[in-house]
Amino acid sequence: VSQCFADRLTDAVIAKRVPAVVNIDPVADRLPAEFAASGSSGRPTNPAAMHQCLRDFGREVIDIVAPIVPVVKINIAYFEPYHAAGIEAYDELVGHALRQGLIVIGDVKRGDVGHTAERYARAQLSEQESPTPKGPDAVTVSGYFGWDGVRPFIEVARDEGKGVFVLVRTSNDSAASVQDILTQDGGKVHEVIAALVTRWAEDSGTLGRSGYTSVGAVVATRSAEDAARLRANMPRSIFLVPGYGAQGGKAEDFKPYFKEDGTGAIVAAGRSIIYAHDRAQYREQFGSDWRRCVEQACRDFVADLRTCLKSQESEPRP
Amino acid sequence: VSQCFADRLTDAVIAKRVPAVVNIDPVADRLPAEFAASGSSGRPTNPAAMHQCLRDFGREVIDIVAPIVPVVKINIAYFEPYHAAGIEAYDELVGHALRQGLIVIGDVKRGDVGHTAERYARAQLSEQESPTPKGPDAVTVSGYFGWDGVRPFIEVARDEGKGVFVLVRTSNDSAASVQDILTQDGGKVHEVIAALVTRWAEDSGTLGRSGYTSVGAVVATRSAEDAARLRANMPRSIFLVPGYGAQGGKAEDFKPYFKEDGTGAIVAAGRSIIYAHDRAQYREQFGSDWRRCVEQACRDFVADLRTCLKSQESEPRP
Repeated sequence: VSQCFADRLTDAVIAKRVPAVVNIDPVADRLPAEFAASGSSGRPTNPAAMHQCLRDFGREVIDIVAPIVPVVKINIAYFEPYHAAGIEAYDELVGHALRQGLIVIGDVKRGDVGHTAERYARAQLSEQESPTPKGPDAVTVSGYFGWDGVRPFIEVARDEGKGVFVLVRTSNDSAASVQDILTQDGGKVHEVIAALVTRWAEDSGTLGRSGYTSVGAVVATRSAEDAARLRANMPRSIFLVPGYGAQGGKAEDFKPYFKEDGTGAIVAAGRSIIYAHDRAQYREQFGSDWRRCVEQACRDFVADLRTCLKSQESEPRP
Repeated sequence: VSQCFADRLTDAVIAKRVPAVVNIDPVADRLPAEFAASGSSGRPTNPAAMHQCLRDFGREVIDIVAPIVPVVKINIAYFEPYHAAGIEAYDELVGHALRQGLIVIGDVKRGDVGHTAERYARAQLSEQESPTPKGPDAVTVSGYFGWDGVRPFIEVARDEGKGVFVLVRTSNDSAASVQDILTQDGGKVHEVIAALVTRWAEDSGTLGRSGYTSVGAVVATRSAEDAARLRANMPRSIFLVPGYGAQGGKAEDFKPYFKEDGTGAIVAAGRSIIYAHDRAQYREQFGSDWRRCVEQACRDFVADLRTCLKSQESEPRP
């Protein structure tokens, strides 16, 4: 196993022949019926049962998608409502996904001033203080504090062979009100942060044979032009791109995030896959078999992405 | 108890006659000797022992400062390295401080896109899914996502009689590289976020008899002019101001964050108080009695702040 996160990620994408990420972000009231342990509403009612349901469902989804995609992303926000038990479930899912051979991104969006950021960096990326065998391979971090808030994450990541994805441009509707503020030189705020990330990546000492560093970026612009500009300006950063499926993005929208050679980005889909049992097209085909719904939705996502990226290799025939 | 967070906070400040916050952010290697449970280096070596040390020390510090200050702030970053056990310790400290009659701010700096931010908001502020009796009275949140990332926190806070402090300008050295970026109209990025927070505060439906809303801001500018401008432009927001003591700030630096009537801000000190046993001036006076060091450092902080703010009331004589 290479000690360079960018190389490990690149190898995993090559092995699965698709730069796809599945988000494992379960919420209690959208789980398949069999996980709705108790309660008249069909939902589990006590916190202990709920976090166990999320964990068991998440584990099964991971097992289903593991042969198909190279990466899963687990957002800790979906586990924090269950406090200590929720964090235990999150840690267990991270460990389970690692054991399945997946690259695991902890979507934690942490950030703070320097000495406090160091605590977060160790908590989320370091093996040392963890009771679980390994933390995730990479985490998402806030760039709002500037260098001294991000440095601890980059340093721990470098020392542990892991990675970070700095929030540059997020996918939500309101993002523009802050991230697209026009600056004095006619650019946008997220471009200034992108320039900082580019420098941090270059100085990180993590450049791999893939041509990328372990300092990536979360990027979801409103226009193809913005995406292409960031792609050109951040040559050493892999982009983590949210927004496929439930968030409205189609595969063709994601092309500008990639370099000509098809590298440079991974695209994430979440609710459209893990809740495929709620989608008519899959329910009609597979009835109440939620596992087959998830598997087919994942295969469709991957095929869509491959087609759009005009992958030179074709889907293997069964 | 009023349902309006701003009023509860204001009343607490009036009752203690000082707008002071003590940060309870313990790290294992700075604890007094008696908490260094085991290990040849004098530090506890296993994670279970460590989180218990942090909790026990934090609990004692809370007991010492509770009669002196109205507010404590607990940064969850110092507990996350201990995973589930750490979160349990954090929850226990929050509960303990609440039972001591303190206003408790959870310094969590959470933020995400809308539907995910809602998970964080419930996790951190809602009673519903909590195994502990109450979460903190308020939390710090990121403004980088814009309205849809902050709205869930404001709504849960309003419904639960709690508050939020949106990160506007942080105290770290690198903050300027992002937060002071000059915008097209000659202002700074943090001023644009301040304007957003001002609008969110006005629209929050949380205006109390104190004249403040439950939508506050974390503000630590580099200049008195910036502080005064924010103070003038954000009339309905209470400022949470870090930086006293170990971070280098003196009481007189904090005046611009307050209105003429002495309201509008709370000032936080952390390491200079909870590690007072490491400071020569206190060690010389109290030897190894770390409790008296903490108490005196807290009293000195409060007295300094009162003097500077020219509080009309004087310190009560013993």
